[in-house]
Formats: sequence, C-alpha cells, structure tokens
Amino acid sequence: MFDMKGETVSYDTANNALVIVDQTELPNKYVQLSLKTREEIYDAIKLLKLRGAPGIGVSAAIALSVLANNSGARTKEDFIKEFNSNCEYLISSRPTAVNLSWAVNEMKNTLFLCKGEALDIIKKALQDKALSIHSDDILRCKSIGNYGARLLRDCKAVLTHCNAGRLACVKYGTALAPVYVLKEQGKEIKVYADETRPLLQGARLTAFELSQAGIDVTVICDNMASYVMKNGLVDAVSVGADSIALNGDTANKIGTSGVAALAKYYGIPFYVCAPLSTFNKSALTGDDIAIEMRDEREVSEMWYAERMTPEAVGALNPAFDITDASLITCFVTEKGVFKPEDIKNLF
Amino acid sequence: MFDMKGETVSYDTANNALVIVDQTELPNKYVQLSLKTREEIYDAIKLLKLRGAPGIGVSAAIALSVLANNSGARTKEDFIKEFNSNCEYLISSRPTAVNLSWAVNEMKNTLFLCKGEALDIIKKALQDKALSIHSDDILRCKSIGNYGARLLRDCKAVLTHCNAGRLACVKYGTALAPVYVLKEQGKEIKVYADETRPLLQGARLTAFELSQAGIDVTVICDNMASYVMKNGLVDAVSVGADSIALNGDTANKIGTSGVAALAKYYGIPFYVCAPLSTFNKSALTGDDIAIEMRDEREVSEMWYAERMTPEAVGALNPAFDITDASLITCFVTEKGVFKPEDIKNLF
Repeated sequence: MFDMKGETVSYDTANNALVIVDQTELPNKYVQLSLKTREEIYDAIKLLKLRGAPGIGVSAAIALSVLANNSGARTKEDFIKEFNSNCEYLISSRPTAVNLSWAVNEMKNTLFLCKGEALDIIKKALQDKALSIHSDDILRCKSIGNYGARLLRDCKAVLTHCNAGRLACVKYGTALAPVYVLKEQGKEIKVYADETRPLLQGARLTAFELSQAGIDVTVICDNMASYVMKNGLVDAVSVGADSIALNGDTANKIGTSGVAALAKYYGIPFYVCAPLSTFNKSALTGDDIAIEMRDEREVSEMWYAERMTPEAVGALNPAFDITDASLITCFVTEKGVFKPEDIKNLF
Repeated sequence: MFDMKGETVSYDTANNALVIVDQTELPNKYVQLSLKTREEIYDAIKLLKLRGAPGIGVSAAIALSVLANNSGARTKEDFIKEFNSNCEYLISSRPTAVNLSWAVNEMKNTLFLCKGEALDIIKKALQDKALSIHSDDILRCKSIGNYGARLLRDCKAVLTHCNAGRLACVKYGTALAPVYVLKEQGKEIKVYADETRPLLQGARLTAFELSQAGIDVTVICDNMASYVMKNGLVDAVSVGADSIALNGDTANKIGTSGVAALAKYYGIPFYVCAPLSTFNKSALTGDDIAIEMRDEREVSEMWYAERMTPEAVGALNPAFDITDASLITCFVTEKGVFKPEDIKNLF
C-alpha cells in the first residue's frame, strides 16, 4: 500500500491516484482509499469520506491532475474542455468551503499560463502545481500552529468544535495546529472536543487524531460547551473555518456561532484558525456565503442506528452557520494574527 | 391493560401498581409498565424509563403508597421504619430533581399527621395523598399552560430543549403546556425541538408527543439553536426545570444554560415553566444544587449503536447545568408569572 507518511491526503504519482483516509470509517477502522475517477472523487467529497476545507482544496487540486493525466483527449481543445468540465463537476460537490474553488482556480491559472505548450508539458505543470498545493498546505498549517501556539501557551485547556485538525488538512490542521506545535515544544494542553452532531466529527475524528498523538482529549456533547465554560474548564476556543467574508463573518460547521456567542458571554477568547485560502474575496459579509443544507436523515436516523425521531417528524440540517465577526477575538493565519476589521486590508 | 386515559403516570389502585409509559422505548414502541416493587420503581427512575421532574415527583408519591399497601409490617413501628427506608431509597435514585424530595416530603407529612391512627387508615391516607398529588399535577400544568399561552400567543414558533411536555408530567407538561393550551384555543404554534444529547429526549419524546397531538414540530441538533435564532425562525424559548434556587438560578437538562445565553444574545425571551414544587427552598443560588454526573458511555456509545469515540478517549456527562437567573426572562408557574427577583417572596 502507498505510504502516506502520516498525511490525510496524498498524491500517489506512481499510480496516478488521489489517496485519502476514509473518514466515515473512523474511529473504528483506519481505511486508505485510492481514488482515480471523477465520480469516485466527487462521491468521496459529497459523502464526507474526505472533508475539511483545506483537505478538500488539496484533494481537488490533486484530483484535477490525476484526471488530466488520465485524459484520453487527442486535441488540446478537447483536453481543456474536459479539464473545465472536471472543475465545474468537483466544485458542485460541496457549496460552502471556499478552499475548493480556491484550489480549482489555482489549477485553472496554471493551465492558463502554459496553454501554449504541448499536452504533456501541461499535464506535468498541473501535476507540479497539485504537488505544490499539497506541500504548501503542510507549511501553512505549521505556520498557523506557530502563531496560535503563542496565543494558547498559557492555556490549560482549549475547546474545539468539529474537526479542524490533521484529518481536515494534510498534516497539523488549523484549529488543532497550535496544540500539536505546543506538544512538539513539550507543553501539554488539554482539548475538550464538541462531539459535533449530526455527523460526530468531534467525537470520531478530533478525538481519534488527538489521542493518537498522545494529547489529552475529552469528548463532550455540543450542549455541554456552556457547562465547561461556566465551570472554568477551558481558557480559550479554537475552531477552523470553511469560508471567511471580508468583514470577518465566518462560515464554519453548524454550531460554531453558538460556541462563539457563549465564549463572548463567558469572557473566553474565540480564535478562528485558517489559511488565507479560506478567505472569500467575493463575500463582503456572511450573507454572501451559501450554506449547504444536507439530508435531514443525518439528524433523524443518526449513524449506523435505528431512527431516533418519529417517522412523521422532520428535521433541519444546515451543515454550517455564520459566526458574526463581532464574536471573533482574532484570526490565526499562516501570515500572522489579524483582527476581523483588518481582513479587508489583506487582499 | 389498565386504562391510563392519556396519562404518562397513573395509579392503578385496583392492582396496587404504579403504571408508566416506558420512555426508553419511544418513539419506536409505546410500552406500558406496571411497577410494584421498590427495586422496579428505583430502576425505572434511574434508567429514565420514567423521567421529568414533575413526573418523577408524582411517581414517587404513588410508589410510596403502593409500597405501603404492600407492606407486610405487623407493627406501626416497623411500618414507619419501612416507609422511611423507602423514602430514602427512592430519593437516592436521582439527585437533581427537587420534585422528587418535595413529593416524598408531602407523603411524610401525611404520615406524620395520621401516625396516631390504625395502619389501614394510614395506608388509606397515603393513597389519597398520592392520588391528590397525581390530580394536582394535571391542574398545575394546565394552569402553567394558561399563563404561558398569554406570553406565547403572538409567537409563530418556540424553541424547547429536552422534554418538559406531557411525557415529563402526567398531562400537558410544563414548557409545552402553553403550546397545548394554544392548540385547544385553536391557535397553531410551531415548535423547534432540540434533540438533546446524549439521551435524545427532544428527538424521541418531544417530537413524539407533539406530533401525536397534531402540533407542527421540527427536530434540530442542539448546536443548531444558534442558527434558528439568528435566522429568525423562533420568537421565544420555553423550557422546564429540575430545581430552581431562591435567586432564580435554574438547574435543567444539560445545555439549557447555553440556550439561555444564546437567547439573551439574540434578544429572544427565555421562559422557564415549572410548578412551585420545583422551587428549591434550601438552595439560595445555583451553587447549592447538586448536579448528577451520569455514565460517560451515554455520550461515547450512543443508543443502540456502536461506539462513536475512540476507546481510549473519555467523555464528560453532566446530566444538568445551571442557568443564571440573569438569563431568564420570567418563570411561568401555576400561580402566575414571576421575575427571578420575585421568587424569594413566594415562600
């Protein structure tokens, strides 16, 4: 089996495949998938086998290169048509995470720059770009970790929501990167992980990756966030993001806005950790961010279990919510730490 | 089978049994249990077959009468000893709901008043008292519903947490009583029900009883409360209570304090509906209320399903939290509507 070197998402160039850890099987099974067709890749994103805003972005870049290498197009015109069709198809898999369209645009720009070259040179350029986006993700996350570690160094425990760790990126993660960096520096910080209904990314993924790394983690139900804050069990909140508007309004996993309002109420700092690729330059405020609505059976039938609500009763299932910029203490990026009001000057 | 007339808890005097609807089987099965021994009754409370602060209180009163009627004690001294032992045993089943000790004390007072009488007269007095506590619960809840209906009459939708409806009492409920009263008055009000992890009383019980009554109910994950408030989907929050301190601090199902802080943040009124028997005269503030900690497997293994957190990872499982009085708009009781600062004058 291809050696992922502890990465969540990799490019197996020898076999021309996108290799991922199947996150729907965690924590009970660690399964590696080797994806080659666009349908396989689309389904992996749609069904959350592959997830996390940065992870989806990196995967889309690798996917576009894998599909380009496999292209049977004889003419450059057909190749570009197929490439553009793959771009649109992958972007349609999930609407909220802006990193997906960011990565696709990076790949489009690469194609644009070398469109005068021969097909094999174009394919090589796309592959190099995908590999570079993949490597960059690790460096960006490490840098977020370095900046975040300074903010968290005096904390005993931090609360996080959903999974914005290694499993949402390639390595390190975003919200959890400071925790890993502190661990590398020999400092222990405890993590409380919101289980994050309906799909339990906190209970399954955050708990898995932190415990694997030897970091003390305790799972709580989402509705216990107020309890742990009120009882002084956490000193800060650290979350990731799927899309950040220019005014600082932030789309992230459903429930994030509630955690942020509670942090404000209890006087606890609320940090959003994200690479600059998560900032959405076409969104002035959170109102400009599309929120994905998912199948309500994710709520009413839970995972692997029998139905838990009466058949006749409907459920709501927005996958994300918008956290008002006013609730965010600061953004931790690979380029430093910024207040919400400073974001518009970054671009 | 004994006819419960739509009641959640009944006294089957013909068979000398406490009859309940087994709430662990809902919404998929409607099972009626006839309980006669103290171990059966203790387990029913401990395992949440029987739950809800008022429901537990009524059940304890009936249980003490059932056990008294079944007593084999030959002397009054032995009878009283056995009665007191039953009182202590039942009180130990769950520590937070104050209605349990309230009901036990009512039964103790009855015994005190007739302790000079013959055993059969004492047993009759205890049975009459249990039946009276049972009937009173319906009337108190109806009255709460009448007062609450005036507060909610202009609302399109209300958010509730956990189950403080018919299934938590005998009939009507507390937090949901205003919704039922409005329905009787021909006014439709929609309910959003927090699913209420870990044991899903909202998804299973609130959704069940409201849909049975033809009331429009939508289930949300607990972490969606912020979303529905931010998007203007609810105009008010109505919850029950397990124990209310004299300063208005309120113990209720874990997560309630978070919903209250969100309601404050979004400017939505937050109503606590409870009979006066839920007010805890020995608690000056929320700090004086004991919070039950339950088995962490309720969080990590969910219901009927495989384990959802890694084996090595622990979970927190406080069954309740304390909502600061400052977050509560008012208390709706059978005697009227009160501000937190007025509670101390009620007793």
